[in-house]
Amino acid sequence: MPSLQGQDIGFIGLGLMGRPMCKNLRLAGANLVIYNRSRAKVDALAKQGMSPASSPREVAERTDTVIMMVSDTPAVEKVLTAPDGVIAGLKPGALVIDMGTTAVQASRKLAGEVRKKGAEFIDAPVSGGVVGAEAASLAIMSGGLDIAVERAMPLFKVLGKNITHVGDVGAGQVAKAANQVIVGLTIGAVAEALTLAKRSGVDPAKVRKALQGGFAASRVLEVHGERMVKGTFEPGGKAITQRKDLSQALDLAQGLGLELPATALNMKLYDRLIESGGGELDHSALINVIDT
Amino acid sequence: MPSLQGQDIGFIGLGLMGRPMCKNLRLAGANLVIYNRSRAKVDALAKQGMSPASSPREVAERTDTVIMMVSDTPAVEKVLTAPDGVIAGLKPGALVIDMGTTAVQASRKLAGEVRKKGAEFIDAPVSGGVVGAEAASLAIMSGGLDIAVERAMPLFKVLGKNITHVGDVGAGQVAKAANQVIVGLTIGAVAEALTLAKRSGVDPAKVRKALQGGFAASRVLEVHGERMVKGTFEPGGKAITQRKDLSQALDLAQGLGLELPATALNMKLYDRLIESGGGELDHSALINVIDT
Repeated sequence: MPSLQGQDIGFIGLGLMGRPMCKNLRLAGANLVIYNRSRAKVDALAKQGMSPASSPREVAERTDTVIMMVSDTPAVEKVLTAPDGVIAGLKPGALVIDMGTTAVQASRKLAGEVRKKGAEFIDAPVSGGVVGAEAASLAIMSGGLDIAVERAMPLFKVLGKNITHVGDVGAGQVAKAANQVIVGLTIGAVAEALTLAKRSGVDPAKVRKALQGGFAASRVLEVHGERMVKGTFEPGGKAITQRKDLSQALDLAQGLGLELPATALNMKLYDRLIESGGGELDHSALINVIDT
Repeated sequence: MPSLQGQDIGFIGLGLMGRPMCKNLRLAGANLVIYNRSRAKVDALAKQGMSPASSPREVAERTDTVIMMVSDTPAVEKVLTAPDGVIAGLKPGALVIDMGTTAVQASRKLAGEVRKKGAEFIDAPVSGGVVGAEAASLAIMSGGLDIAVERAMPLFKVLGKNITHVGDVGAGQVAKAANQVIVGLTIGAVAEALTLAKRSGVDPAKVRKALQGGFAASRVLEVHGERMVKGTFEPGGKAITQRKDLSQALDLAQGLGLELPATALNMKLYDRLIESGGGELDHSALINVIDT
């Protein structure tokens, strides 16, 4: 793990993902200035040697690198552009890194506003869930100028393992949209396959094991397939989050005049899961919509 | 690799998969008695020290173990039950192994007819394609009695690497149906994701690489994703075969009163590919239906 000894890093958004990421940055020696909308989460981490700020603006005023890990596109927009937001406090030469899953078009627009202040913007969404955040093994897909991504690299190496610079600003979010399309649809595929096995009177656990050796092998079959076999759906990644990500991917496609029929169907299946009360379950609970 | 030195093994069906499988059995020392509907393929292998038979019946009369690797369920039925078929020549105590992808209901029925002759039946379909057949690294999913599967095991170990005894007769075909559902749907997922990236102006090759580190990682993203990025669609597994396998999986589901909405959609997308003349291409050519 690279050392971040003595570096001041701002971190906004202390949810399921943000908290373990902060802990890993702290372990690497960074001085963390943290902010979260609900104060209780700030206080808990303050006891572990991190320094609370009272607004995103204060985070920006006190650091040169600001990481955001908030829930959705409107939240990112607010954190950046509100009167007490990051942009209001941003120093020239600072670096803003959005590690959440944000709409591509919004990322590009926000990057423009950050640059007006003489600062730089990277989108760097992640895959790997809470487990990956805790184990510092997140896949990180980044978009931005070479010089900005290089500057963020030591910090990325503290948080993750598979770090790819995909392209310009927004390219990280495009890769994340592609990621969520594949994850959602592969969960749907495994759900239909294991249900077919179960209804045919064959042990889904044995089928899952048999399939791991062939072309059906995937991380989803391994991780989410096991959750389906055991029927344990603690998130992980929540169904409502997966649904939001699919909706963003479909918005992006629509803007390009591109039809994604399987993605559209998959989102409808997630709608059914959410309507039946499963929104807070892990996204692998999609099998409950198939195996009825 | 276990030795099959001096064992007589019958092999029916010398297509893209059957030929390399025969060669691997021969390399392990087996005496092969071979049959194929079109004679040219028999003659080519006869030059490599395998012994031709003039009918499936003759194959059964000259061996105690008969492997079938033919194209579809009607072909298996014909090879087994025709007047000059395997069953007509079957010795008591013989073992019949169907390694093709056959309908579950048909497998169970054919097993019954084989048993009437005092012989045993295993369904043992494979995943891994021509590459897996050549490298002797096929995943093999078997269904049948313990004693029959144990008897076939040395031979399976010559042909493949991930060998699972899933359950009773038909269970191997259930696992294969599940496999094909996952493969077809994951190909569809990767096709939509990489097209979304391309249309967004982001390099699909970089997105594919970025995604291999996270939850979107799969054998399909690795193997078929690369074919999509390069636009090279030599099979591999043909689109028409994938379509046939999806249709069989949907028939199985329908018989159980089970709806598989994503599988049904995926089959329709394969129909479109076939209608546009892509049936003989690799199944990864499904991206041509999305990226239009």
